[in-house]
Amino acid sequence: MTTAAFQAPKGTRDFYPPEMAVRRHIEDAWRRISIRHGFLEVDGPTFESLDLYKVKSGDEIVSQLFSFTDRGERDLALRPEFTPTLARMIAQRAAGLPRPVKWFSIPRCYRAEQPQKGRLREFIQWNVDVVGEAGPRADGEVLNLCADALFELGLTTTDFRIGWNHRELITQALLATFVSAGRLPDAFYILDRLQKLDDRGRRELYAARNCAPTEMTHYEMIHSAIAEGGRPDDSPSLQRLMAAWPQEVTAAITAFQSRLDSMGLAELCRFDISIVRGLAYYTGFVFEAADARGDNRALAGGGRYDRLIETFGGPALPAVGFGMGDVVLEILLRDHGRLKDNLLPRADIFVISTLDTPDKADRLISDLRRSQWNQDHTLIVHPGYHVQTSYRATKNIGKLLQEAAASGAAAAIILAPDEMSRGNVKVKNLFDRTETEVSITDVRQTVRSIIQMSARA
Amino acid sequence: MTTAAFQAPKGTRDFYPPEMAVRRHIEDAWRRISIRHGFLEVDGPTFESLDLYKVKSGDEIVSQLFSFTDRGERDLALRPEFTPTLARMIAQRAAGLPRPVKWFSIPRCYRAEQPQKGRLREFIQWNVDVVGEAGPRADGEVLNLCADALFELGLTTTDFRIGWNHRELITQALLATFVSAGRLPDAFYILDRLQKLDDRGRRELYAARNCAPTEMTHYEMIHSAIAEGGRPDDSPSLQRLMAAWPQEVTAAITAFQSRLDSMGLAELCRFDISIVRGLAYYTGFVFEAADARGDNRALAGGGRYDRLIETFGGPALPAVGFGMGDVVLEILLRDHGRLKDNLLPRADIFVISTLDTPDKADRLISDLRRSQWNQDHTLIVHPGYHVQTSYRATKNIGKLLQEAAASGAAAAIILAPDEMSRGNVKVKNLFDRTETEVSITDVRQTVRSIIQMSARA
Repeated sequence: MTTAAFQAPKGTRDFYPPEMAVRRHIEDAWRRISIRHGFLEVDGPTFESLDLYKVKSGDEIVSQLFSFTDRGERDLALRPEFTPTLARMIAQRAAGLPRPVKWFSIPRCYRAEQPQKGRLREFIQWNVDVVGEAGPRADGEVLNLCADALFELGLTTTDFRIGWNHRELITQALLATFVSAGRLPDAFYILDRLQKLDDRGRRELYAARNCAPTEMTHYEMIHSAIAEGGRPDDSPSLQRLMAAWPQEVTAAITAFQSRLDSMGLAELCRFDISIVRGLAYYTGFVFEAADARGDNRALAGGGRYDRLIETFGGPALPAVGFGMGDVVLEILLRDHGRLKDNLLPRADIFVISTLDTPDKADRLISDLRRSQWNQDHTLIVHPGYHVQTSYRATKNIGKLLQEAAASGAAAAIILAPDEMSRGNVKVKNLFDRTETEVSITDVRQTVRSIIQMSARA
Repeated sequence: MTTAAFQAPKGTRDFYPPEMAVRRHIEDAWRRISIRHGFLEVDGPTFESLDLYKVKSGDEIVSQLFSFTDRGERDLALRPEFTPTLARMIAQRAAGLPRPVKWFSIPRCYRAEQPQKGRLREFIQWNVDVVGEAGPRADGEVLNLCADALFELGLTTTDFRIGWNHRELITQALLATFVSAGRLPDAFYILDRLQKLDDRGRRELYAARNCAPTEMTHYEMIHSAIAEGGRPDDSPSLQRLMAAWPQEVTAAITAFQSRLDSMGLAELCRFDISIVRGLAYYTGFVFEAADARGDNRALAGGGRYDRLIETFGGPALPAVGFGMGDVVLEILLRDHGRLKDNLLPRADIFVISTLDTPDKADRLISDLRRSQWNQDHTLIVHPGYHVQTSYRATKNIGKLLQEAAASGAAAAIILAPDEMSRGNVKVKNLFDRTETEVSITDVRQTVRSIIQMSARA
């Protein structure tokens, strides 16, 4: 076997520094925003008992898993999602956890399926859950966190939109108007496809599902309501629909939309009756984030699944959450020009030496990189700097200063025989190109002010 | 199957928020310090072709791997270490990468072996490599990075030590003094065990390996040299040994130790002839970090392996690097009291509301959490805050202020009917317990100065 033939396995990625910088940019935003919203990070094993994945999804899931056995012949599988692990962890310690449980995680997940655009065999998924808190407050909270992370990554209300629905409320509305209990599965099937089809496609769908004329009229009105923006005040179709719904249903929908408005999400969010989410386990509120131009698959999705923890052997605990994958998100950020060309870390300081021996440069570089601690070594009082230097043998200061500029450093420190004989070094501000000679004992203070100035600029 | 029976698989860990905070603390330090030292982060797939792992380690490795097949019947395995992936990635793009390649990674790795203290089936390993740069400068650089990360995590020179050796130099020294070429494998075998045995154990070892009296004398002198601290200036035994070594060997050893001294590592590092590292692929410099109390297995280890990239089908490129696992490191940090009790993130602000409707509190909380952008939406000018609030139904401000204090927040904002009727809120500084009433439009500025003051305190 010639070893050069090795490639990353199908559907997986190599993260060279530029790709890794993008991944870091995304993961850091997810983590930072989750913490700001009061969520705590958790994680579990990369693989779990194969049986754990059957609890929620049944035996069919097995063909979509990477599964294997350990030396004790236990059946294990790489996690296809985090939710079963979350449910297991909560079920195991339910009594001892502070309520509500507000957790997030950023696991790598695995699917043994055919790779395609936006779907890989290995991907990273941000998971957010509130467990132990029923009702619209927690629903709004997770939706707001989802939106805020996308804002933090530079997306605006013109780049993406969030549609929300409520399976229980909409069921009541359907039953009270034009759907019989026996026809509910058909109704959800039709709703799910409503916005993906053109006029002809919808007519064919109604025919295939044996819709009566009054049903067709209602579905067309729902279709218009969503197309009109899904806000009662702007959509005559939605107004007409809601006029026939039970009062408690319209009140709950209006209240939730006004909760989203309070959180500054009025422009972004719309009530979208067609969002029903495939997974059978959602029990109430559901939502999806997607590209505003509509040419991408869902960016994130979630909702309320109040029977989840019970299903995994824990107590009955209400739960709401969502997941967002890195692959579709990165495509969206790129398509909307929201990724900087270069996300690699920039140096603070670049050290240049034209001395014959390395010891003085080694000492300075090492000293500048190392954090300074307080006396009893309990606290970092001055964090170390990101310091780079050249590996080339040249003493050509012009060339070395070019390398310094390319590193993104704010300041260059130059160790040369002349200045060193006076115990000094030259410090060059790489933004305004000014140069000063300072004592080597003062150099940390000098570069510190240059770095602080450049950070403000 | 009763679902409550599910546990994390053997040898893996659940990371609840406190455990995850420790992992984050460690990973963040690794990442921060790597970047400061000019390294770029990379990652690869969690699994690779099974054959890739045989290149370096032969067929025996297979029994220590979690292996499986994908739908295309390809043999894959969970990575037991990162080095084969690194070598593959460099071999694939060797021509296009800037030299030297300075990369780090923080992958999860997997070993299908019996779990024991300090060894799990799933662990996290920090990997650092310099590729394309031969010689002691890069050797010193990776050792210094290893030390600096341990300093950054709060460890001091009394907590850990680093021993270094050089396989090529020590081979020359042995051959020039008391070891014949045919006895070299025995010599390395003996050196590797020298510091792990008491007087009697060493005598038995010498006998088992048929050592002549002059060999025994030399090994005992080496044993003393290491016990005396491994610095020529302090160790009479080392001085006697080195007096008989070829001049270029002693010069190289002295020069490398003085390079370490320049980097401020004099106290920490010692030349340790017994460090030979098991892996056959090391070609020169080797080192290990370990608990200074000597009661733990190696914390980190590495060295130079100049044939690595070639072995994986790439060009001949010199390389030096090391790995450090999270499991042993966490034990060491705990044993030396270098982990804070609570590493969970602290809130900046806690919002309390005694109003009847949630909209005003929702709006304020959402606004404080969200970053503020410049006008053309290219830059965050004011990052959002970590804001928490209570989920309890109570309006008892005393109890809510206790909850605020427990969150670690610097400031509490209280929305109450009286103040709100004047368009105001109360802001409580939770450090000095002072309280002020401010207009709701000024509240961001007020809490900002409290947070800045508390950060300096």
